[in-house]
Amino acid sequence: MIILGLDPSLSCTGWGVIRAEGSRLTHVANGEVPTDARRPLAERLAHLHAGLAAVIGEFRPHRAAAEEIFVNKNPQSTLKLAQARGAAMAACGAAGLMVSEHAAREVKKAVVGTGAAEKRQVQAMVAVLLPGVRLAGADAADALAVAIAAAHLVRAA
Amino acid sequence: MIILGLDPSLSCTGWGVIRAEGSRLTHVANGEVPTDARRPLAERLAHLHAGLAAVIGEFRPHRAAAEEIFVNKNPQSTLKLAQARGAAMAACGAAGLMVSEHAAREVKKAVVGTGAAEKRQVQAMVAVLLPGVRLAGADAADALAVAIAAAHLVRAA
Repeated sequence: MIILGLDPSLSCTGWGVIRAEGSRLTHVANGEVPTDARRPLAERLAHLHAGLAAVIGEFRPHRAAAEEIFVNKNPQSTLKLAQARGAAMAACGAAGLMVSEHAAREVKKAVVGTGAAEKRQVQAMVAVLLPGVRLAGADAADALAVAIAAAHLVRAA
Repeated sequence: MIILGLDPSLSCTGWGVIRAEGSRLTHVANGEVPTDARRPLAERLAHLHAGLAAVIGEFRPHRAAAEEIFVNKNPQSTLKLAQARGAAMAACGAAGLMVSEHAAREVKKAVVGTGAAEKRQVQAMVAVLLPGVRLAGADAADALAVAIAAAHLVRAA
């Protein structure tokens, strides 16, 4: 099963594709879709949508996963994040993908073994769990972590 | 100039297209894109995105307008709304449309003459300002009101 993990944000959306065969996980690809903050919101969201549609078209995942959205103290940040997430999920939905949603603690627990892990630890463990991976950046690493968590839960189900 | 007004929401997004020639406004079309609450979020967002892309393809607006998002007391409602708005704006951006954002008070003032107008008054004035209009529903009426407000501001600019 090919799983697409997503870490959506307006400024830079991370994505990561892994293959899960039983308990064996292998890295397929990862990357980031940055958007230009000087451009209008609608254009940035369209760029994000198109970028993920291209990733989905290339790697043909069987399912997708995204971190559950968290409500930031800054409402404007939350709204930007949610709009980016909406554009990203629309791209998944257009390809008929189910998108499972995972709490941050669940992702950390699946990757590091504890829900209280730090971001650095999560990224280090992604590199351990997917040997040979070259990370496009921190957002791509987070997206791979979400994909790993989704793979664990699919197996557990 | 053809203007597309939007009233995005996850359950039912209203849209309305008007033509603005100087101070003269005429109705072109209006409608709603409902989504099925029993379906997964990604599928609903994709349906919304595709529905608006079809509207844009049919009526070829020169610009779009949406109400500024408001932060609901219920964070989950706000997140749903913002995700729907992100999918809607991505559809506009893909067509190269600028989307102006208008505060609710500004829309009421443009349509009724006072920012404190009630929803019923706004809908009644939409019917007065666009003679012969047949409204697809309350969300479509709200979308037309946003388009009217955008037309006023374009003229004032």
